[in-house]
Amino acid sequence: MDIKFLYDNHETLKEQKVTIIGRVRSNRQGKAVSFMVLNDGTVLNDLQVVYKPETFGFEQGSKARVSSIVEIEGILIPTPTRPQPFEINATSITLLDQAIEEYPLQKKEHSPEFLREISHLRARTKTFQAIFRIRSTAAFAIHKFFQENNYVYVTTPIITSNDAEGAGEQFVVTVNEDKDYANDFFGKKASLTVSGQLNGEAFAQAFKNIYTFGPTFRAENSHTTKHASEFWMIEPEVAFADINDNIQLMQDMLKSVVGYVLEKNMTELEFLQEQLEPGLIDKITGIVNVEFKVNTYEEVLKTLQDAIDKGHKFEENNIHFGLDLGTEHERFICEEVNKCPTFVINYPKDIKSFYMKQNDDGKTVAAVDLLVPGIGELCGGSEREANLDKILERCEFYGINPEELDWYIGLRKYGFYKSAGFGLGFERLIMYITGASNIRDVIPFPRTPKTLLY
Amino acid sequence: MDIKFLYDNHETLKEQKVTIIGRVRSNRQGKAVSFMVLNDGTVLNDLQVVYKPETFGFEQGSKARVSSIVEIEGILIPTPTRPQPFEINATSITLLDQAIEEYPLQKKEHSPEFLREISHLRARTKTFQAIFRIRSTAAFAIHKFFQENNYVYVTTPIITSNDAEGAGEQFVVTVNEDKDYANDFFGKKASLTVSGQLNGEAFAQAFKNIYTFGPTFRAENSHTTKHASEFWMIEPEVAFADINDNIQLMQDMLKSVVGYVLEKNMTELEFLQEQLEPGLIDKITGIVNVEFKVNTYEEVLKTLQDAIDKGHKFEENNIHFGLDLGTEHERFICEEVNKCPTFVINYPKDIKSFYMKQNDDGKTVAAVDLLVPGIGELCGGSEREANLDKILERCEFYGINPEELDWYIGLRKYGFYKSAGFGLGFERLIMYITGASNIRDVIPFPRTPKTLLY
Repeated sequence: MDIKFLYDNHETLKEQKVTIIGRVRSNRQGKAVSFMVLNDGTVLNDLQVVYKPETFGFEQGSKARVSSIVEIEGILIPTPTRPQPFEINATSITLLDQAIEEYPLQKKEHSPEFLREISHLRARTKTFQAIFRIRSTAAFAIHKFFQENNYVYVTTPIITSNDAEGAGEQFVVTVNEDKDYANDFFGKKASLTVSGQLNGEAFAQAFKNIYTFGPTFRAENSHTTKHASEFWMIEPEVAFADINDNIQLMQDMLKSVVGYVLEKNMTELEFLQEQLEPGLIDKITGIVNVEFKVNTYEEVLKTLQDAIDKGHKFEENNIHFGLDLGTEHERFICEEVNKCPTFVINYPKDIKSFYMKQNDDGKTVAAVDLLVPGIGELCGGSEREANLDKILERCEFYGINPEELDWYIGLRKYGFYKSAGFGLGFERLIMYITGASNIRDVIPFPRTPKTLLY
Repeated sequence: MDIKFLYDNHETLKEQKVTIIGRVRSNRQGKAVSFMVLNDGTVLNDLQVVYKPETFGFEQGSKARVSSIVEIEGILIPTPTRPQPFEINATSITLLDQAIEEYPLQKKEHSPEFLREISHLRARTKTFQAIFRIRSTAAFAIHKFFQENNYVYVTTPIITSNDAEGAGEQFVVTVNEDKDYANDFFGKKASLTVSGQLNGEAFAQAFKNIYTFGPTFRAENSHTTKHASEFWMIEPEVAFADINDNIQLMQDMLKSVVGYVLEKNMTELEFLQEQLEPGLIDKITGIVNVEFKVNTYEEVLKTLQDAIDKGHKFEENNIHFGLDLGTEHERFICEEVNKCPTFVINYPKDIKSFYMKQNDDGKTVAAVDLLVPGIGELCGGSEREANLDKILERCEFYGINPEELDWYIGLRKYGFYKSAGFGLGFERLIMYITGASNIRDVIPFPRTPKTLLY
């Protein structure tokens, strides 16, 4: 039996004999009665065990230190007047493995910084139990949403020779470590992928609906709470789809994923709401229940300028076509103006990527970013440029050698009628859902500059 | 509408008007009637479109080359006497995008070698449509199985500083490319992971039941049909579990995953059975329906020796304790002797990994390999060594510096009572399920020595 089983069945198990193996969270001797709190990781809630000097194995049990493993036999007793619905009256305790006294996670508060240093142990704390269980649930919810809608999961390559995407600095993958790429393992320069999108687009031409979900990498020396060197991305792509289909898909996916987490992990969300972010559950329930708004980039500029004219002060007040919206602008739009998640579409072409479809106005592209209250941009995507000449012109503008991407650009020669997709940083979504404010706290073993532990 | 929708609803749609966008597989003009075969990737089956000189857009339609994108309006007509259950009588054809004449996938047979050269296009062929859809279904089935059994999905790190696992040659991850690791991105030597197991074990101590599912890497210069430089692994780990629990889990998982593919992808399996492997469906149905057998390693040795004594010839006939069983031996046991999937347990400790639990006999470890008819070893695992001194002794034996893995080995100090898990190479499973004989044909964009395309 595990502790989840007891929680799921405690009403039918009352007054019954149960056997449990668990890890000791605390162990406190009283004069007549002693209390041991156990957890086995199968559920966020702990199990309270009551034992007495006459309990078989009392001697062993009373010596069990924090983090030791014990086996308990006992009777499940309802405790309707207490916070936990039941406890175990132990009849027998076996100390299966004693922990050393120097276990780092004694029952006290630890700083997030300290816990990041022990990422092989921190998942045992309640906060990280909650975060990583939600991460797991959300990952499954993403697969479930796409599979139920007939999307094919494509594992795009991690090691790549594409270095012309311009999406960020790349790590080099090598065996010889001598920059003599022709004689290296792959016979050419190899890097870690920054995005599976281009490969995904090729597969969307085969399956119509595809999604990727895998790790991506940035060799950027940034020390912020939002950036990690290794993180996971979801990149759906749909052939024969335009920017409006893309907007609909983003909205449907997010509502589905957040709704699934709300359904499965309310205990964890309540705990995190208390520990990390007041109002968390209302915030994410809002994602499920509201219709998102759509603004054009130029509408956003006008709204921002109006606000400035009425006295609002941003850090950046020079609002002009071509401005890359800052988080302050994004949050203002979705939090103060629309008060709901907001799609911003049709950005200036020169601040977006080479593969985005140019609109007929000659100055914007069919790009879309989703802004959500609390963080600003959550994900972004676009309809892709179908016209070979136009994409070549954009390559030239950005200094991309089209020969290095001829396989990708050339897809347009073999029958290509619209394609649209987006990228969602998985960790950003998990931060949003859990209330965690540092990306290092939603990744099991985070990788950042100068930090490579475990 | 997509073509899957038509197949799912053709009975209610009969004589109804439908609109479809698809890619031209073939286009053949007859005197009175012309035929266009379309596919949109949403389903393996094609759609036959019938059109005539009086069809609106006949001119455009008749010019549409292979791989062009067309939009068809027409009436769905049942064709109960033909292989396909219905066809479309076109009323209107629009050529949305014309493909060039030099499209590489004209309607003829292509060699697997040629298709590997164009991995950005080959997913459009029926064989690869079937393989990659099954890959997607199986990936989801794995997540579904574990999630429904309360396992937490853990994304273990891709970039790692662990280089002491002994599981294989590693790629180096670097920015500076000068072997001056102290000044490199992470301040130490960084590599691509060969296994998430050790990190997964740490999380099993927190959640009891966990699984990983992510890419792993081997920088081995092997040119076989079974090895790729980048492949995906599933590595479940369960705390408080022994080798028997592990055997049960392997069996339950495989039956569940194969059963789900049989349920969802029978069309694809029938196609692959015809194209790649006669008897495929019976073979994998066998996985679902039979109870697997368990043999000890020493029982296997005896069976092999008996066979040799009776005249059977292996390539390797020197059967002795310490022999690393070859595929020929493995297949003989499960195909000729047991005629069913077979677990072999309790291997000699000196041919297995340092972290495996030593049995009381002093010479074997609680390791388990699963052998299946047709390929031999499909996956392997073990109960883990819980005893600190014993694991340190094994480190010494294998020349592993325990200080480099102190975080992992040290888990045994903080309360550790049994742990067991296994590793399943995802591509090996997909080869088994699809009948594909080369690992390059079950990976969307395969990476092998000197090959890094797209």
